[in-house]
Amino acid sequence: MVNQSVTAPQGFMAVGLASGLKVSGKSDLGLLVCPTGAIAAAVFTTNKITSAAVQVSREHIKSRRTYAVVVNSGNANACTGKQGLADARRMCALTAKHLSVEPQEVLVASTGIIGHHLPMEKVTAGIDQAAALLSGSPEAGLAFAHAVMTTDTRCKQAYREVKLARAIVRIAGTVKGAGMIGPNMATTLLFITTDVAISKSLLGKALKEAIGGSLNRLTVDGHQSTNDTAILLASRMAGNTEITGLSASYRKFLAALTDLCTDLVRQMALDAEGATRMFQVVVKGAGTKTDATKAARAVADYSLFKCAVHGGDPNWGRIICAVGSSGVKLKPEKLSCKLDDLYVFHNGAPTDFDAKDASRIISQREFVITVDLGVGRESDFYYGCDLSAEYVHINADYHT
Amino acid sequence: MVNQSVTAPQGFMAVGLASGLKVSGKSDLGLLVCPTGAIAAAVFTTNKITSAAVQVSREHIKSRRTYAVVVNSGNANACTGKQGLADARRMCALTAKHLSVEPQEVLVASTGIIGHHLPMEKVTAGIDQAAALLSGSPEAGLAFAHAVMTTDTRCKQAYREVKLARAIVRIAGTVKGAGMIGPNMATTLLFITTDVAISKSLLGKALKEAIGGSLNRLTVDGHQSTNDTAILLASRMAGNTEITGLSASYRKFLAALTDLCTDLVRQMALDAEGATRMFQVVVKGAGTKTDATKAARAVADYSLFKCAVHGGDPNWGRIICAVGSSGVKLKPEKLSCKLDDLYVFHNGAPTDFDAKDASRIISQREFVITVDLGVGRESDFYYGCDLSAEYVHINADYHT
Repeated sequence: MVNQSVTAPQGFMAVGLASGLKVSGKSDLGLLVCPTGAIAAAVFTTNKITSAAVQVSREHIKSRRTYAVVVNSGNANACTGKQGLADARRMCALTAKHLSVEPQEVLVASTGIIGHHLPMEKVTAGIDQAAALLSGSPEAGLAFAHAVMTTDTRCKQAYREVKLARAIVRIAGTVKGAGMIGPNMATTLLFITTDVAISKSLLGKALKEAIGGSLNRLTVDGHQSTNDTAILLASRMAGNTEITGLSASYRKFLAALTDLCTDLVRQMALDAEGATRMFQVVVKGAGTKTDATKAARAVADYSLFKCAVHGGDPNWGRIICAVGSSGVKLKPEKLSCKLDDLYVFHNGAPTDFDAKDASRIISQREFVITVDLGVGRESDFYYGCDLSAEYVHINADYHT
Repeated sequence: MVNQSVTAPQGFMAVGLASGLKVSGKSDLGLLVCPTGAIAAAVFTTNKITSAAVQVSREHIKSRRTYAVVVNSGNANACTGKQGLADARRMCALTAKHLSVEPQEVLVASTGIIGHHLPMEKVTAGIDQAAALLSGSPEAGLAFAHAVMTTDTRCKQAYREVKLARAIVRIAGTVKGAGMIGPNMATTLLFITTDVAISKSLLGKALKEAIGGSLNRLTVDGHQSTNDTAILLASRMAGNTEITGLSASYRKFLAALTDLCTDLVRQMALDAEGATRMFQVVVKGAGTKTDATKAARAVADYSLFKCAVHGGDPNWGRIICAVGSSGVKLKPEKLSCKLDDLYVFHNGAPTDFDAKDASRIISQREFVITVDLGVGRESDFYYGCDLSAEYVHINADYHT
């Protein structure tokens, strides 16, 4: 088996295990380690209430080297006050001690229920145990991916290779996220490893750009969590000439990184809580890019339309309603809407489309909606998924 | 039986019947008539795509007198181009002909599926039949209320009396609305009759103010429809001294009107598609009124929290998450949250509340959430309801 996990790029070890944080007994604690010291980049939630892990990692990302990321699922350690902050710092310190590095050279991420203190005896015992089990095997990478999951039904991994001159650069990522996925955020929890040699500032730029065109374009329920974190670690062991400027090598690396993130976005959308299908909303003919983004998001976020998609029902009126409600500039007499290549609404009037064709399109696992506002030349897109009764069941019963 | 329908105030007649627009054969066409000519006020959707009825009524509301409102359910006559506009005008013209008045002295409202042309032979036959059945009886008022319903499971009516000097002023209203209820709109379809004597400009001001503090503070799925319309007709037959200024009489009338609208809001929230309970989100300690409104709406609109409410689950972390995600100014170390009178989060840390108490509160048919942002002295509120699997079922199968 070819390794497609976070241990695939050169220089990484990982582990995942059950420390007892989850009542289900499932895996809930992971370590991702670069023994030689990686350079790191991160993007965090823009929610004004942030988890203790986000607050600590925001400080630690400033370090020149990052040796490890310690992650727990089953408890968000958010809204937990000063004790929560002390707990997050202790997770870093304990991990650092095992690796003989400084606490600020370790990043931390948490996901799960908000407002409960971490049971630290379980967490510390878990970290001690994990440190002894670190491995560079594909299985260890997969175990790390499993430790990050909450309501995800499938483990999400992606892997890309890119050739820079004679060097093969590897990029691997795993993402956790199924609900509470809103735009303008990193994602939920995303961990990417690569062995590319690159400067820290360009690594940060590449992460931001890749996420901007992929994970920040997905909305499941329109909200950012308190814990959203995306971390990219580069071991710099691929043997490529270090990327220090916006060169052809940078662009090739960025393209591969964006492609990997888009792959993970599709996996997330199709595994969103209760989701059975996903769609892309493309808005064109907008007067401004902001309007295009706003209109696309309004459709992707609109629960009435998401329900119709779930029912395989081409209720395109709800698309037009969402666009009109979004407040963007549009010309009613020029407004048009397509489902894949089928016009259902053209220049402000319904077309004579065959309802069967429309139903077939909207019943696919993936389809594209195109809306033309008839105003200008700007465009943008959003990914969304259907809203099912299963989403409600999952989220009505999550806590207790 | 005391008449509590739109025919209760002096000078109104109504009717409702099945014209065949609904496949179910349920009532779908109504007339509300003031034979002596009422003064009228209206508030319409702020959606940029408006139904043909909204476009026509926006013109006709400028008339000095309004003799009738013709309403159909089962078809929104929205996104129907020029033909839709001609159809809406024809509904007014035909109603006007029966009453020997001008077409612009008739208002029109439609609700139902978007993007389908009205079957005009059914509509015209329905109007002919309705005109012959007009009556001032309570039954006729109730029949009108039924003709306006779509996915509503209960007919919503409210009635108030207010004494202005020696005159008894009557106000009655009926509202249709269960999904697609967003703020910053009139409502879905709201019809209020009153016999108060008042100037047209003050009637308009009163309607706007009453809706601003009631119907505009309810969100079910965050969207305004293409058809939202609120109409207030005043026959001026109550015998009160005409209200022409912001007098004590105006304030008494406004208070009664707002109270009636709030009553209808509660009925709407509890009959929202699939809803089993409603809540009020009060945000205080905000730096600005806009921030208070925004934060309250963010909680009321948040599908993850709405699911938790459905499950009777006091997952208050989702309240904090929504507030933090809304972008308003807050002090994390001062942030507090109460369910009814129970603090679950106080000054940035979770309290030692009893989970059973919290569950009991959130399992009530109605409860109040109070969030203190810890910044300033401004406050505002929003009403919301739970999100159930039933909502998805209703909206996944509406079209076909």
